[in-house]
Order: sequence, then structure tokens, then C-alpha cells
Amino acid sequence: MSILIKNGLIVSQNMNREIFYGDIYIEKNFIIEIGKNISTEADHKIDASGKIVMPGLINTHAHVGMGLFRGMIEDLKLDDFLKKTFDLDSKRTDDHIFYSSLLSIYEMVRMGTTSFLDLYYSEDIIAKAAEEIGIRAFLSWVTLDEQFTTQKGNPLKNAENFIISHKNKERIYPSIGFQGVYVCSDETLLKGKEISEKHNTLQHMHLSETRKEVYDYLKQKGKRPVEHLYDIGFLNENLVAAHTVWLTMREIKQLAEKNVNVSHNPVSNMKLGTGGTAPVPEMIENGVNVTLGTDSNVTNNNYDMFIVIEVAGLMHKNEKWDASVLTSQELIDLATLNGAKALKMRSLLGSIEEGKAADIIIIDPEPNGLPLFKENVLPNIIYAIEGLNVDTSIIDGNLIMQNKKFRKFDFEKIKNYIKS
Amino acid sequence: MSILIKNGLIVSQNMNREIFYGDIYIEKNFIIEIGKNISTEADHKIDASGKIVMPGLINTHAHVGMGLFRGMIEDLKLDDFLKKTFDLDSKRTDDHIFYSSLLSIYEMVRMGTTSFLDLYYSEDIIAKAAEEIGIRAFLSWVTLDEQFTTQKGNPLKNAENFIISHKNKERIYPSIGFQGVYVCSDETLLKGKEISEKHNTLQHMHLSETRKEVYDYLKQKGKRPVEHLYDIGFLNENLVAAHTVWLTMREIKQLAEKNVNVSHNPVSNMKLGTGGTAPVPEMIENGVNVTLGTDSNVTNNNYDMFIVIEVAGLMHKNEKWDASVLTSQELIDLATLNGAKALKMRSLLGSIEEGKAADIIIIDPEPNGLPLFKENVLPNIIYAIEGLNVDTSIIDGNLIMQNKKFRKFDFEKIKNYIKS
Repeated sequence: MSILIKNGLIVSQNMNREIFYGDIYIEKNFIIEIGKNISTEADHKIDASGKIVMPGLINTHAHVGMGLFRGMIEDLKLDDFLKKTFDLDSKRTDDHIFYSSLLSIYEMVRMGTTSFLDLYYSEDIIAKAAEEIGIRAFLSWVTLDEQFTTQKGNPLKNAENFIISHKNKERIYPSIGFQGVYVCSDETLLKGKEISEKHNTLQHMHLSETRKEVYDYLKQKGKRPVEHLYDIGFLNENLVAAHTVWLTMREIKQLAEKNVNVSHNPVSNMKLGTGGTAPVPEMIENGVNVTLGTDSNVTNNNYDMFIVIEVAGLMHKNEKWDASVLTSQELIDLATLNGAKALKMRSLLGSIEEGKAADIIIIDPEPNGLPLFKENVLPNIIYAIEGLNVDTSIIDGNLIMQNKKFRKFDFEKIKNYIKS
Repeated sequence: MSILIKNGLIVSQNMNREIFYGDIYIEKNFIIEIGKNISTEADHKIDASGKIVMPGLINTHAHVGMGLFRGMIEDLKLDDFLKKTFDLDSKRTDDHIFYSSLLSIYEMVRMGTTSFLDLYYSEDIIAKAAEEIGIRAFLSWVTLDEQFTTQKGNPLKNAENFIISHKNKERIYPSIGFQGVYVCSDETLLKGKEISEKHNTLQHMHLSETRKEVYDYLKQKGKRPVEHLYDIGFLNENLVAAHTVWLTMREIKQLAEKNVNVSHNPVSNMKLGTGGTAPVPEMIENGVNVTLGTDSNVTNNNYDMFIVIEVAGLMHKNEKWDASVLTSQELIDLATLNGAKALKMRSLLGSIEEGKAADIIIIDPEPNGLPLFKENVLPNIIYAIEGLNVDTSIIDGNLIMQNKKFRKFDFEKIKNYIKS
């Protein structure tokens, strides 16, 4: 397939962060040419005049398998929230997970996300949903100590089997996950890391999300979670740690030293009311690669990364009493280039450059992103545009959605399941 | 005109906050009948099955005349922000204000707002834009001491003239505004209040938005702004005070005692990084009527009230470390019934009930508001739905937008001005 995008306002996210009007020619999976007045023939010619063309957004922390629980667990203090979540979660069928995933992934693509990193069990079912829609899916099979799990069999073995069976599938990137230090012994963590190293995959975990988690751990181990993980040699550049709200400066420096990637989830953190504010400006200043995630739609409650980018800006400007904290350019980087780096896909994803993979979205700014100029396109993307403004999604060179319509997937399939 | 809405999931916001599936029959300006299986003939029959039907949202603090400045003043510390704003503002033409207002108001309606309260000069121009689109516009002509104004003539006289010339226009509710205590002497405030009483209008002002404003005032007057306004007899039930971030408990009780209405603007406050968190739970607990506003799209940066409701929830749950703060029902009330009360329109607006004005929106929840049940509709509205999900807007019985298309107004008019 070849695609020619004409006359868009291109937010390239290239090395110099150039923003310009131009055309993009895509052949098979790749961006072949970027320029003005490209006249190559193409299977699909898309008029992007008046529209924004940018790299697809990268969501680095999701639980798509919970999609159908949206809005079911609300306004509860954390203990009651977790109780109700586990209760719902324990009664699931494979079909419920599959259709939940279809709904979540459909919504992601509809709203501009082209790659996501998930953390859940049954990632084999989730992979099927991802393949059906065509998103780029980084799937971490969650592990924890056997005594805590409801998974059949040994979680570490399940994860390794999932990795082995899925590592050659197109646009599916299997990896290993960890629920968190509160249910993962050092042995589980280090064995999981070994599996990751053996198969060259990412590692993905919840880390220091709540004050209770950190202080319970401190009491038990005499160290804070990041300090302990540093000391046992667990931290490394293939790890994506979600939340990291409760960190000391010492821990920030440890994450930076070991090149750990962080997934900041501002909407979920605020909504759960677990307190504190992730030290994002401090992490960035110390060289930690910060990315953005939604978390599940039980705590978000949608998969719109534009709102996550906006709320990240709002949260930290407010926290620091300073509107100059986290500039528009920094915020866009978090959801594109930094996400690509965390997924070890920097050579292919995160920017619009010749030779990179064609993961591109086109945004219709009418009416809430107008007027539109080179000068205001970044703040418009962050604070004015919403996921539903996205009108075209190209993933790995495939035209998945055009004019807000999916070309192959029929949403009726999901609606019919919900009705049944 | 008569309209019959069939089979919607109706979030009535009536006395018992009932949520039910049903039909609504509208004739001329009013809701005539609510029930099941209504079969009356109507000029427009709207199938709302699978959709949410709710009262139009009420935005109690806007500056629609700044619409075309979107994204032009970003990431600046407050002093630089104000300098650049005043600089842009000083070079305006009437046309620029008119088209700015058209853009802002179009966007409001597109995103589910049916009434708004504005604060600006040149409200006569803004009234024309409101009439062209058909929104319910509560317009406060801003006043301040003559020595600070760029208005031609005396601001108080301008405001009174605006009130007199506009008080009999359909869907236009003129009133008087005040820039803030930092540019309004007691004399200006009290004369303005007299004008409001003479013509029975609202009063609308910025109040205690920033720490500097409050502490400068304290130094100069020996009292905090609300304390002083209380002592001089300025506070009253017709006043809508925007922001009110920096309040003591004593001031909260003074606002409550005098039945002052507050417009909480969480997105704008956070984005400007002016610090602090408006004490919304405390105001509600003490009986202050709290409503929600966007502020201008220079600081928001769109007119989507769904995001404002969401961020209000996020901000206060996070601030209090408690997810049970500001329940979904409380948040929906802020943007509907409480807004109606602040505008002195409680008998007509804010809920879907027989005999009330037909200010109704219909929301298409696909895909980000699904699954949809009576049990999750409120959190779905707040945390999952966005302004662009709105597909129908009825204001004062007029069908302004259907299937996301405006029936009479052509957006090309605004685009042509932007291009010129």
C-alpha cells in the first residue's frame, strides 16, 4: 500500500522539532519522502490541508482488558476501590477480556494512539484484539508470586510462554510485567528479569504509586522500593515503571543512573486520590526518560492521550505555581519521542522522518483547534484538541481510520457483544 | 417548532436526580411532556436510543471575545502573560471581537454548552454573535475605574447603556461586571451595584484569583478582598464571583451568608500556575453555590465544559487525597442546576422537567462513553465523554445542532474571516 498525505501542517518531532507545511509519501510500512509538492502516484491520496499531521501518540501504561468496566467503580476510597476491582476481575470470561480489549483498542486508535504498552494477564487474548484492529501492541504479561495470583499455572512460566509464542507476530511485542513490589518477591523480580534478558524484551511494572505502598515496604525491608530495586540490581534500561509518584531525590537519581523509563499517569493518579504529585520536572531535569500513560479506563476513564498530555501540563504548572513548567514542546515529546525510547523503538517511532515507520495521525482542528498556525499548533494540540478531533490513523503504513471511519473493523461487533 | 426526542437515557437532574429511559416532547420554548412511548406528532423527531439526554451545560465565566487569541500566549509566568494579553488586546477591531465571539460561541454549542456568562467590554458586539448562533448569553459589561480603562467613555455609563439597550432581547441577559478589586474603587463597585439593582441584573467579577492580588490588597486596605467587600455591603445573591482561589474559612462563611455565587475555573487556574486550589469542598459544605466556568480560551484553551467538570473532579480528589471528594452527582450539579441558580434561572434551566425551558443536549457515547448504563452514566459524562461527543443541541426550544451539524449557521463564515 502507498499513501500520499498532501498539504498538512506537519509537527515532525524530528531532531530540530521542525513544524512546516508539506507532503508525506508512504510506501509499505515506511515514510519514504517528506517535502513540498510531492506528486508521486499513490493508492490513497489524503488532503490534509487545514489539518495537523503528527506522529501517532504512544501510551505507555494501559490495562485494555478492563475496557467494559468503565464507570463501574467510582468515587471510592482506595481500599474499597481495590476490593471492588478484584471482585469484578475474578468473574471474567475470555470473551469479556477480548471484547474489553477490542473496545479499548478501538478507542485508542479513534483518539490518536498508535502504540500502547499493556500490563495484564491473558495477553494472548489481548493480542488477538490488537491484531484485529491493527494497532502496535506492546503486551506485558503480568507476574507476581504464586501465592497471590489467580492465574492458572506459574505466572513466570505463563509470561515466558506468551513471549515465545508471540515474539514473531507482526506489530505484537510481547514482554514481561510485574504487578508491584507488594506482591513480587526479589526472586520473582529477578527471575522475571532473566526471562526478559533471555528473550530481549521490555519489563513493565507498577512502582511507588501510593504512599502506603512505599511506607509499608520501608517498614518491611528497611528501604524504599526504588532503593531496594537498585541495590538488588533489578533496575535497567528495559524497564518501564508506571506511576513513580512517591520518590525521593535519591531514588530519582537511581532511576536516572540505571536509565529506567517512567510512565506518568496524571489523570489516573489524581482520580484515585492517592495523594502526592509525581516529581516529573525533577525526573526530567535529572535525565529520567518520562513518558505518558492513561492507566485503565476504570481510573481515567477513557483512552484519550490528548487529555493526559493536557492534565500533565496542568498538574505540574499548578503544583509548581509556575506556568513555564513543562512547555508545550516538552509535553509533546513525552507522548511521542520519549514513549518511543521507552519501547526501544526510537529508530522507528515517535517522529515523522524519512525511513521511520509510518505511524501517523491527522487531526481535524475544527472548531476547537482554530485558528491554527505554526506558532500555536503545539498548545492547540495539548490544551484545545481532543481525541475525537483525530480523523485519520496510519499504523505501520496501514490506513486504519480515515475521516473518522475505520476502514476494516466494524464497531457493531463490539456493540452487539455489549447488548448480549 | 415542536421536537420529540425518543428513547434516550435521560439524566433529568430533577429534584430526585432521576435517571431513566424515556421520551421528551418540546413545543415552542418549553418541555411539555416527559414519559414513555409519547406518540405526539412533531416537526422534528429525534431518535436518541443508545444516547444520553441531559440539560445543556452552563458555563459561568467566559471571555468569548478573545476566541481568536487561542494558543498565542503560552508557558509564561503570570506577569509576562498579562503583559502580552494587554498588548494583544489593545490592538483589536470590532470585527476581530465579533469573529472571536462567533468562534467561541460556536464551539460552546458544538461541545454542549447552552448558556454562558461572559465578562468583557464591547458586549454589544458579542450579543450580535450570540444572536446569530442562538445561544443563551448572559453578558456582563466590565467596569473599572476610569483611570485604568481603555474603554471610550465612562465604563459604568457604558455598562448601563448596554443593559438598557439589550434588556428586552431574546436570550440576551445583560448585566454589569467588574474587572477586580485591584482596579475598582469602592465607589465604582457600589455605583455598579446600584446600576445592577436599578435594572435587576446580575453582577459578575474576578475575585481573589491570585495570591498577589489578595496580599497586595491586604497591605493596602488592611483587609482581604472578600472581607472588605462584605464590610462595605457589596456582597449579595446577584453576584457571580469568578475564581475565589485564595479564601480563608472566614471569607467562605461571608460568601455563604450573603448568598454569593462562585464560578470555579479549575483548568484556567491550573494552567496559569497562579498557585493554590480553590476550596471547593469547603465552599459547598458551607452552603456557597459553586458553579463551573472555562475562563477564556487563552487560558483553557477551549470551551469544553466536559473537561472542566472532569478536571474539577481530578483536582479536588487529588488535593484532598480522597477519591470520594466531589461525587459524580455533585460534579454534574455544578455544571447544571448550580449554574442555573447563579444566573437566577433555576425555574427555567438546569434540569429536564415539564414546564422548564427546552435547553437540552444529546450525547453520542460511541466509542468512549460505552458501555452505557443508568449506573455509570454520570461518571461516563464526567470522565469519559468529551465535548465532541455532543451531537444535538436544543436551546430555548430551537434545534440549533443535529448530528453534529449546525442547522442554520455556516462555520465557513468564521474560516473565511480567519483566512482573510
